[in-house]
Amino acid sequence: MKVQKFGLADAELVRSPGQDGDIFVGNLVDERHGGPITIEYGRYGANQTLTETMAVHDVMIILEGRISVSTNAGTVTARQGEIVYMPKGESVTITTEGEGALTAYVTHPHWAEVHE
Amino acid sequence: MKVQKFGLADAELVRSPGQDGDIFVGNLVDERHGGPITIEYGRYGANQTLTETMAVHDVMIILEGRISVSTNAGTVTARQGEIVYMPKGESVTITTEGEGALTAYVTHPHWAEVHE
Repeated sequence: MKVQKFGLADAELVRSPGQDGDIFVGNLVDERHGGPITIEYGRYGANQTLTETMAVHDVMIILEGRISVSTNAGTVTARQGEIVYMPKGESVTITTEGEGALTAYVTHPHWAEVHE
Repeated sequence: MKVQKFGLADAELVRSPGQDGDIFVGNLVDERHGGPITIEYGRYGANQTLTETMAVHDVMIILEGRISVSTNAGTVTARQGEIVYMPKGESVTITTEGEGALTAYVTHPHWAEVHE
């Protein structure tokens, strides 16, 4: 794969697997491209909740809005330009409030491979 | 490592190795933390140029400003919220114009390990 630029318009947003809320993800780079990294955008509506045990190491960069991540150690809230690192094996509950959020994700290994 | 939130104030910005310009990086997560991913912020002044052959797979997320990446295939220009994927082995020239840029980087494997 060559150097490539992505914007939100390049992502086909689909409902995040395992939930029926207003949470969508769109892959930009994944196992189909030969590299070791998955790159995605994520779009969260207002007042959403998603609980997950991390199957991959996941870096979430907040591009718009505000998002909180709770674990048994407490809750962090991240805003535009901030980053939440969610290592493999951690159990997290991700929540948004009134404004929702736009995020970018970078995972290793590929998210899809461990969910099949 | 546990789930952790980072902001720019958590990064100790140092001059990016191999250049004497106005380009700084600050590691948030790296080989010291046991995982497979390096996470950094990058701060570019105006009118900077950096040429590099990628030693790692590198995802650059633009948080502020504007940045261009040139390869022998052409040039892409990315703005706030956009992402440039620079796979290992690619030769790139990164440039900023008048406004500079703030970026986040996620690399695999660790950037520092291949530069030692």
